Amino acid sequence: MTVHAPQRLARQIRFIMEIDKLKRIVRNTYLTDRVRLENDAEHSWHLAVMAMLLSEYAADASIDVLKVIKMVLIHDLVEIDAGDALVYDEAARAEKARFEQAAADRIFTLLPEDQGAQLRALWEEFEARRTGEARFAAALDRLQPLLHNYHTEGGAWREHGITLDRVLERNGHMAEGSPALWEYAERFIRDAAERGWLPTGPAEG
Amino acid sequence: MTVHAPQRLARQIRFIMEIDKLKRIVRNTYLTDRVRLENDAEHSWHLAVMAMLLSEYAADASIDVLKVIKMVLIHDLVEIDAGDALVYDEAARAEKARFEQAAADRIFTLLPEDQGAQLRALWEEFEARRTGEARFAAALDRLQPLLHNYHTEGGAWREHGITLDRVLERNGHMAEGSPALWEYAERFIRDAAERGWLPTGPAEG
Repeated sequence: MTVHAPQRLARQIRFIMEIDKLKRIVRNTYLTDRVRLENDAEHSWHLAVMAMLLSEYAADASIDVLKVIKMVLIHDLVEIDAGDALVYDEAARAEKARFEQAAADRIFTLLPEDQGAQLRALWEEFEARRTGEARFAAALDRLQPLLHNYHTEGGAWREHGITLDRVLERNGHMAEGSPALWEYAERFIRDAAERGWLPTGPAEG
Repeated sequence: MTVHAPQRLARQIRFIMEIDKLKRIVRNTYLTDRVRLENDAEHSWHLAVMAMLLSEYAADASIDVLKVIKMVLIHDLVEIDAGDALVYDEAARAEKARFEQAAADRIFTLLPEDQGAQLRALWEEFEARRTGEARFAAALDRLQPLLHNYHTEGGAWREHGITLDRVLERNGHMAEGSPALWEYAERFIRDAAERGWLPTGPAEG
């Protein structure tokens, strides 16, 4: 922006315009109308509303909901540079983790130092999944695409040949953040398998 | 969802799946890459991050940032039924206000009663623009499309033949929520006019 602004506001606005790019990062989840795939900005919005409504199911009853909301709002910003990787694609995910640190270095430092450090710390906390807030945020981050896959009769699961055992294995950590939401998710995941939207894996015959 | 769930959780999930439709409500704002128009879910996400970063500029220094974030996350849900209307289209906006009450009746009552009432109250507070939180949220709701129009060399302004005087008139209420952000916006709006992206209106010659 070439218009004169105080240095601090100019950096905040530069960051705000930069993160518009999150709207172009396409995920492996279909919208419920099945017309197109979702992007990271829409996904982050959906998680933030879920955090508002579902915090009563968090494993840790003392979590700070504002922190969870902030975390989910910014959790995918590094994908502006690093891209999205299918949660079931282990090789892509390992590769991606390396790019994400560089992405965080670039994107969060656009902000004034204090705010950049705050957002970076929130993102690192989310990634580490050690606090009550991060574990609950991670549970929501898993629940949302599972719901979309269920509501699109298998959606991306079918497209990528994902099996029941892998869905249970990759999403089981939801229980750390929210036993109640994992119990619920496990029920509809098994229902999806019964409906034929999610084949049982070779391990299960 | 046909899978058994406690009644309360079932209603929460039903609402969460319903609001996926916000991702289909197209606005009159181009993304900064100018490839396509933005949708309401992306817009709401962008405002929520802006609320995290810009609350230091609120007119009322004692605002509750969590409340502002919740407000912007849900402020456009009624558009799932009522659609988006160009902020400069007065006739469409009057019509839309009537539909929005009916939309709120339908959408918020999908939730358990306590949460539906909370979200409805947040939305009514946003619309009334009387509290510090609502005024600041409204300022962000104006600032974001203004920034997009500036960063796309006039974008939707040019497409709809919007003039400088109308932009200043329709967005001046930003000053109630944030004098600093309005001062900044006014500067780049006038800069856009000087660059020829925003014609001066008939009133101004």
